[in-house]
Amino acid sequence: MEKRPNDTIEMLRAEFANVRKTAIVGHLHPDGDCISSCLALYHYLKDNYGYEADVYLEPYPSVFDMLPDTAVIRHTVKPEVYDVVYSLDCADLDRIGAGKELFDSAKKRVMIDHHISNPVFGDVNYVKGEIGSACEVLYTLFEEDKINYNVAMCLYTGMVHDTGVFQYSNVTPDTLTRAAKLIAFGIPFTDLIQKTFYEKSFNETRASAYAISKAAQLLDGFFVWSYMETKEMERFHITSAELDSVVSELRNIRGVDTAVFLYEIESGVWKCSFRSNHVVNVSELAVSFGGGGHVRASGCTFYHKKPDEIITEIVNRIPKEDYAGRAL
Amino acid sequence: MEKRPNDTIEMLRAEFANVRKTAIVGHLHPDGDCISSCLALYHYLKDNYGYEADVYLEPYPSVFDMLPDTAVIRHTVKPEVYDVVYSLDCADLDRIGAGKELFDSAKKRVMIDHHISNPVFGDVNYVKGEIGSACEVLYTLFEEDKINYNVAMCLYTGMVHDTGVFQYSNVTPDTLTRAAKLIAFGIPFTDLIQKTFYEKSFNETRASAYAISKAAQLLDGFFVWSYMETKEMERFHITSAELDSVVSELRNIRGVDTAVFLYEIESGVWKCSFRSNHVVNVSELAVSFGGGGHVRASGCTFYHKKPDEIITEIVNRIPKEDYAGRAL
Repeated sequence: MEKRPNDTIEMLRAEFANVRKTAIVGHLHPDGDCISSCLALYHYLKDNYGYEADVYLEPYPSVFDMLPDTAVIRHTVKPEVYDVVYSLDCADLDRIGAGKELFDSAKKRVMIDHHISNPVFGDVNYVKGEIGSACEVLYTLFEEDKINYNVAMCLYTGMVHDTGVFQYSNVTPDTLTRAAKLIAFGIPFTDLIQKTFYEKSFNETRASAYAISKAAQLLDGFFVWSYMETKEMERFHITSAELDSVVSELRNIRGVDTAVFLYEIESGVWKCSFRSNHVVNVSELAVSFGGGGHVRASGCTFYHKKPDEIITEIVNRIPKEDYAGRAL
Repeated sequence: MEKRPNDTIEMLRAEFANVRKTAIVGHLHPDGDCISSCLALYHYLKDNYGYEADVYLEPYPSVFDMLPDTAVIRHTVKPEVYDVVYSLDCADLDRIGAGKELFDSAKKRVMIDHHISNPVFGDVNYVKGEIGSACEVLYTLFEEDKINYNVAMCLYTGMVHDTGVFQYSNVTPDTLTRAAKLIAFGIPFTDLIQKTFYEKSFNETRASAYAISKAAQLLDGFFVWSYMETKEMERFHITSAELDSVVSELRNIRGVDTAVFLYEIESGVWKCSFRSNHVVNVSELAVSFGGGGHVRASGCTFYHKKPDEIITEIVNRIPKEDYAGRAL
């Protein structure tokens, strides 16, 4: 598909104002920004233009039910041809989740995203790779005087999730200024952060903590790692999906550049999550083991090896100049 | 001491402009907001009015050495009579740390704070109980065009620390707007948050995680607790001061209202930290055991009891209507 330039804010706003049979779709495994951006657009259209869009998302963590009117979200597709379908926060046509066929069959496809890698796959497109979240992109598209309490709750939540609560380098002065205007609506921002971002279940908390308590250091603390076996997950009554936060917490250990967490998905098969702070390119590291990802966050899979054998292989592949020339 | 009204911004600004022998003091056990506010004022005076104030603070965590020019901070007092001494972030005259006698003997004492309980103990006073941090109070006092990179780094860091990275209910739209202007100076805000707020040492991380992995629930998950014995701390090579984050993390467990962490400071003597989210008044709870604190964060000490005996006593003292009428 030929890459085409972004359309203008005016074009997008004209689309919003255009009352037709409308749906909104997100991406596979919807995360905070995805769910929030879909609901933000839903409320914006309904409250300002008086029409309800059908929202299609795969099942998502129940904590997001504190967002307004999540009951409208559909997980299964009704066989319709929509006049317009909005794709939000989705970097790739293949990654649209529930509602993908509706997007494909829509009379007009509108794509709004913030992933710089987005190949621009809509009929109307708005991709802002320099903006930290899909919700913040929507903020720039929405007319400020048309944002209300419900829209603000959604936009704020997405911005929190894709910025690690205003920490990541994708936060700009505009991000914080926009967040300021959103909390001025009196939204329960303290609870939104705690309940959708920080809160974990009892089992998840104990299991993650257990994994972290087993952490070990190598390379004078430049490298830290831990692992969890299937039988340990069973003991804590959790699945590997509930161990997401472990590798990020390992990365927060003072002096650490590279953090690795291994979790066993079936006997002898280990998923490996890599994170780094400043030095090691963990995308290259993961690719060298048949995986992939980003410079600071990546992953791969190992078969029929033990954790300490895997770690030895990984450590041996860390460039000596990275470790020796570290600037932590 | 008679409580006197706050002085005006103009009076405070006149003090800043007044070049005299000047010192700055904070409070006992200086935290992020205390250290940052003292350094922010130091840089503001030096860069705009060309005079160096002597900064007196007790020893503080070394992570704050990433703030500009911490080398000027003195831990021991030189016997001087200062023309003016600024007390920053200190809620009570008795809680001034290093430099207290200098404050007492100063020709003029200027007090700037954000604690609503502050009895107003200076000759010139500026207490804003509705503002979330001493650094944000300074922001309102400083002239915006006199804030520079170094001042911005300090103000931002203090605001981050006293708001739990923009999460607590003391965050206002103004807080975020001010933070936006501060990061516009190009300060390393991502690192400031990670290194001064989230980062823990390897031992601290493993020990805290171990304590959390032992957590237990009571009252259908309304109450969660854990504990750590002296011998366990020794095994992890840490002191109890390095277990600060445990009780906050317990409070983040889904469904929890009240979290309790017990740590043994000497054989059979247990310090107890309480936190609650919405329901139980843990100040009353701590007071009923001879301790004290705030509605959502408090503490007390138990002697010659075992952890499970202590927890049974605490749970029995939680009002039944609190637990039964919970709205989590």
